[in-house]
Amino acid sequence: MSSAPSNTLTNTLARQQDAAVARFREWLAIPSVSTDPAYAEHVRAAAVWLTARLQTLGLEVTVHETGSADAPGHPVVLATAPPSLVANPDAPRVLFYGHYDVQPPDPLDLWTNPPFEPTLREGQLYARGASDDKAGVLSFIDAVEAHLTTTGKLPGPLTLLIEGEEEMGSPSLVPWMQAHADALMADVAVVSDTAMWDYPGDPDRAPEIALTTALRGLVYFEVTLTGPSRDLHSGVYGGTLANPANVLTRVLAKLTDDAGRIAIPGFYDDVADVPDAERDAWATLGFDAQAYADSVDGSLAGAQNADTLHRRWALPALDINGLTSGYQGAGAKTVLPSQASAKLSFRLPGDMDPHRVAEQFKAWLADQDLSGCQAECQEFGRAHPYRLPADSPHLAAAQRAVEQATGKPAVLVRDGATIPIGADLKTLLNLDTLFLGFGLAGDNIHAPDEHIALDRFHLGARVMAALLSALASEAVT
Amino acid sequence: MSSAPSNTLTNTLARQQDAAVARFREWLAIPSVSTDPAYAEHVRAAAVWLTARLQTLGLEVTVHETGSADAPGHPVVLATAPPSLVANPDAPRVLFYGHYDVQPPDPLDLWTNPPFEPTLREGQLYARGASDDKAGVLSFIDAVEAHLTTTGKLPGPLTLLIEGEEEMGSPSLVPWMQAHADALMADVAVVSDTAMWDYPGDPDRAPEIALTTALRGLVYFEVTLTGPSRDLHSGVYGGTLANPANVLTRVLAKLTDDAGRIAIPGFYDDVADVPDAERDAWATLGFDAQAYADSVDGSLAGAQNADTLHRRWALPALDINGLTSGYQGAGAKTVLPSQASAKLSFRLPGDMDPHRVAEQFKAWLADQDLSGCQAECQEFGRAHPYRLPADSPHLAAAQRAVEQATGKPAVLVRDGATIPIGADLKTLLNLDTLFLGFGLAGDNIHAPDEHIALDRFHLGARVMAALLSALASEAVT
Repeated sequence: MSSAPSNTLTNTLARQQDAAVARFREWLAIPSVSTDPAYAEHVRAAAVWLTARLQTLGLEVTVHETGSADAPGHPVVLATAPPSLVANPDAPRVLFYGHYDVQPPDPLDLWTNPPFEPTLREGQLYARGASDDKAGVLSFIDAVEAHLTTTGKLPGPLTLLIEGEEEMGSPSLVPWMQAHADALMADVAVVSDTAMWDYPGDPDRAPEIALTTALRGLVYFEVTLTGPSRDLHSGVYGGTLANPANVLTRVLAKLTDDAGRIAIPGFYDDVADVPDAERDAWATLGFDAQAYADSVDGSLAGAQNADTLHRRWALPALDINGLTSGYQGAGAKTVLPSQASAKLSFRLPGDMDPHRVAEQFKAWLADQDLSGCQAECQEFGRAHPYRLPADSPHLAAAQRAVEQATGKPAVLVRDGATIPIGADLKTLLNLDTLFLGFGLAGDNIHAPDEHIALDRFHLGARVMAALLSALASEAVT
Repeated sequence: MSSAPSNTLTNTLARQQDAAVARFREWLAIPSVSTDPAYAEHVRAAAVWLTARLQTLGLEVTVHETGSADAPGHPVVLATAPPSLVANPDAPRVLFYGHYDVQPPDPLDLWTNPPFEPTLREGQLYARGASDDKAGVLSFIDAVEAHLTTTGKLPGPLTLLIEGEEEMGSPSLVPWMQAHADALMADVAVVSDTAMWDYPGDPDRAPEIALTTALRGLVYFEVTLTGPSRDLHSGVYGGTLANPANVLTRVLAKLTDDAGRIAIPGFYDDVADVPDAERDAWATLGFDAQAYADSVDGSLAGAQNADTLHRRWALPALDINGLTSGYQGAGAKTVLPSQASAKLSFRLPGDMDPHRVAEQFKAWLADQDLSGCQAECQEFGRAHPYRLPADSPHLAAAQRAVEQATGKPAVLVRDGATIPIGADLKTLLNLDTLFLGFGLAGDNIHAPDEHIALDRFHLGARVMAALLSALASEAVT
């Protein structure tokens, strides 16, 4: 077996740490805000910086333009380890996915330090992108460097795919992956863009490394009902003409029953049961539903603990994400609004198909009595759920790696949110994905004062170095 | 009988017309926008102009400041005919109410001419305030002048109360009236701030002069539900915590039953039947419910014609006037909103009591299952409905006046909207009010290109001159 012993890797990483932090600060100083065209040159600069970092290690790097002349996208950075740097060419090929773009830093006045002047306070490095996702990308590359420094080789074949549009919904990614499927052929994917397990529970329990084995899918709609062709005086017309705001609330209310279950016929047909073993494992996570709700002043929709995790991870949800109608200023305006609209989204666990759900919802809406209002239904994205098979050999390898690097196994969790890359990698490349990240819910991602503890940044590199070894050893154990 | 014969009054008014239009243009050029403090000096200028106009006729005029030093209001102009100008001091005293302030002119770019440069096109005078309500006030004063010019006297005692805050909700008026009740003592009130009857029906039927005998009252609420203390990620939290937008739509939907009736227990207890004679009269109005709905691309809530007038004039209505929650920009944002709010108002016909309705609604809301969300219920005004008794001698006098001035009786209508002055005059001064106006629904009041036909401006003066005679002759017929 050619991979480096972990204690040697750990030593190498320890020696690399100061340089790793210096690089991390340098990359964080580049404001790679993808969604705002004003930052386009900075986004490109972040891709150039990344390319140089990967080339220094001897990887073969290509930078791929995306979008069109009219609507230019941000580059995809693709890197491959040349055969000369791979110890075992027959080991499973790992495809690492990450993103080098960041969210906008607004509102700027709520930052303690300027968002692109990385600042260390009490062990936490504050900067936009620190936790999401520059730490995840750089710590993986540091793990690659540790292998190369220690043995001159990587344990197995490796491809890195780092995009620059994740924070704007990855509009170029799927078409680009379809066009470059050959270059992306691999055996398993690794994504470092999730969080550790640190949800409210026992305050003495430290955050634990988590393998996220399932993510919910999504279908997002905006329903607009139109009644009169202009806003009317509600005194003159009230009671005689259908009011689209009244109708909208009546229709939306019918989407759920009194118990909060989604009332679309057949909606729950494809909701899978949670295996007993997984439910049992959830019971050991120390999750306290009341503490979880109290941390955001929310009210629990279901009963306690296991029920809340079940709702969050394994049941569909319908949330109204926005309501708009009529007069929204201060005080009173007696208007019978011309229009009323709702943004709403379904989260889809397990085996639910977003296309089927979208059709079910549209058929349901078409069946509603709208009192003569016209309905328009816009869609803003469909994403499949993702599930890593419980018997995946890659999952077992990841568990060995975490235990080797930290002395403790990872906890297995799901996530209620949607990360489309998991389903995309499965659909386009038939890859299972290991979601293994080192953020915390309190890192303020997408918010002012985003930060990450340098300890977790370094922990990520250690675990990823061990993971590369473990995945390569799958083939030879 | 000392009042002038109507043909003489008509001749006098005909001779006055050019001067009346010149004055109308002059007053319209003063931008008396009450709600915007930037116009405060113009509002005062409009009051000063009005004062001078009334003084020229020999009336005793006082200008009353309102509000406080911290929050100054706009002046109330009060005018009284001195005994020397009154032919029959024992005739009923008329209290005329109007307002000299106007709505803001925005959006300016939708005006054909600048809103404060009155412009005549095809017989219509375009300017902010032309129809609402400077025409109503000036044509009444022109009627006063016609009497004084023709006979040197008014037929009976007269008081004019012209305020400058109507378009901002008359915040100073009721306290001012309470403090000046003695000066306002009268026998009947006249308000010229309603419209002629010209709702969609027979296209060959010209607009007709209408006496508005009832107005609906109003109670206006804003209900805000608060769930989590901040907006949450709907993927992470969706399905586990109560979403205030979901809860709000469920609660609002329960306010009405499937037939659209308000589902608050006891809500309809005080809804009076419409007398058969009045219903029969409505059937002669040529109202076409479908044409009415089509004119604004609306869908009828009820069945045809008589049912629609009944809903509009004699039944309560619940309209949601505004909805606000979560993300309202373009596209998708996966937010579980912290808050959701609705503005909603009840229109109250006949004998309904806004205080009782407000208590009923708040009690109903307190009974709802809000899934743990906190409800805040703000109120933005309560107004009583108004009804003129069918056997009022003033109504009979007004009918005689309209027939004398135009050869045709007025149609008797109600209005679904709320004009609080009617109920205020009843409550504070025990006065019945004759609502008799010369606007049309198509005059674009509160909108760009507000206008009034000069023919209707002059018609108003003729009818008001006849009304002053008829009301004075009540006492002597």
